[in-house]
Amino acid sequence: MYPKKFEDLITAFQQLPGVGHKTAERYAFEVMNWTKEKQEEFLEGLKVLSTGIETCRICGNLSDGDLCPICLDETRDTSLICVVQSPKDIAAVESIQEYKGVYHVLNGVIDTSKGILPEDLRLSSLLQRVEAGNIKEVILALDPTVEGETTSLYIETLLKDKTQVTRPAYGIPIGGHLDYTDSLTLLRAFQGRK
Amino acid sequence: MYPKKFEDLITAFQQLPGVGHKTAERYAFEVMNWTKEKQEEFLEGLKVLSTGIETCRICGNLSDGDLCPICLDETRDTSLICVVQSPKDIAAVESIQEYKGVYHVLNGVIDTSKGILPEDLRLSSLLQRVEAGNIKEVILALDPTVEGETTSLYIETLLKDKTQVTRPAYGIPIGGHLDYTDSLTLLRAFQGRK
Repeated sequence: MYPKKFEDLITAFQQLPGVGHKTAERYAFEVMNWTKEKQEEFLEGLKVLSTGIETCRICGNLSDGDLCPICLDETRDTSLICVVQSPKDIAAVESIQEYKGVYHVLNGVIDTSKGILPEDLRLSSLLQRVEAGNIKEVILALDPTVEGETTSLYIETLLKDKTQVTRPAYGIPIGGHLDYTDSLTLLRAFQGRK
Repeated sequence: MYPKKFEDLITAFQQLPGVGHKTAERYAFEVMNWTKEKQEEFLEGLKVLSTGIETCRICGNLSDGDLCPICLDETRDTSLICVVQSPKDIAAVESIQEYKGVYHVLNGVIDTSKGILPEDLRLSSLLQRVEAGNIKEVILALDPTVEGETTSLYIETLLKDKTQVTRPAYGIPIGGHLDYTDSLTLLRAFQGRK
């Protein structure tokens, strides 16, 4: 029983991940209650959706211009490349504040069931970076799923004669319990024991 | 370490009620991953923020034009007015699917601590509606807070010689427990016993 414009607003918010009708309604009423200035500020922040965002020419990370903040940062070790599925994963790796190398975003993983083939990923640019030389190590930090594994194996084959290829350790998560760990993770943990 | 445009997007989403940095980040990555069409659809839904929304000339509810869907509905009983604080409360009353009258939105309650006085509310239009005649009953469905109570008493004084003024029953919520009910609610429940 809402006017159409308001229903449209609720429907828009419902598109956000994990937002149902009730939450979307709450967002809609809240934004309608904002001052004109705050509403304009909000729309201004969302402008990137119509202008689009650039991606880094080198690594494929989200960027304001030709290069992303990480590739622009001269203190980063450019001989170390961490390969990730999406820019989101860069945020996760950055949060550990340990990794000082650079990144390479694949924009997905090989998934034949969805028709995503190696040529759909940013693989040739990765190969170019490695072939340009001076790359000491490539860390494959893809999700430990079937598709992630397939992609990691594919990249390993592609790069193994050109540079050192590593992967993060898989195993029991810190704070986890042995008896609650799924058997595949436990298997990996035992295989990777030191 | 995000590009500015993307940070702005996260900041915008963080303005939504109950959305912290983590959730805003999730929303931002999600919307950036949408197809161009879906992004445009989303912005289209939010267009009401720049165009603004009209309010019903009669009741003050959100509306697409001169009158809101409820005031346009000829099956509603116009001799029965339910007074609410905001359009949001109309949604709540509508959800019980029991009330067949019309509404009057005050756009707030009297709150001297915030400088909201009777003249800031849509009270004169309410008085006009009642004085125009044919109003059998006015239900004051304001929040049972100090400010809501003050406003209810104010309206009661204003209208008591002109029409019948009622309020919804206050008491123990269905499914609630007697020992978990706060004493003010319990007091009201005992005062209102039948």
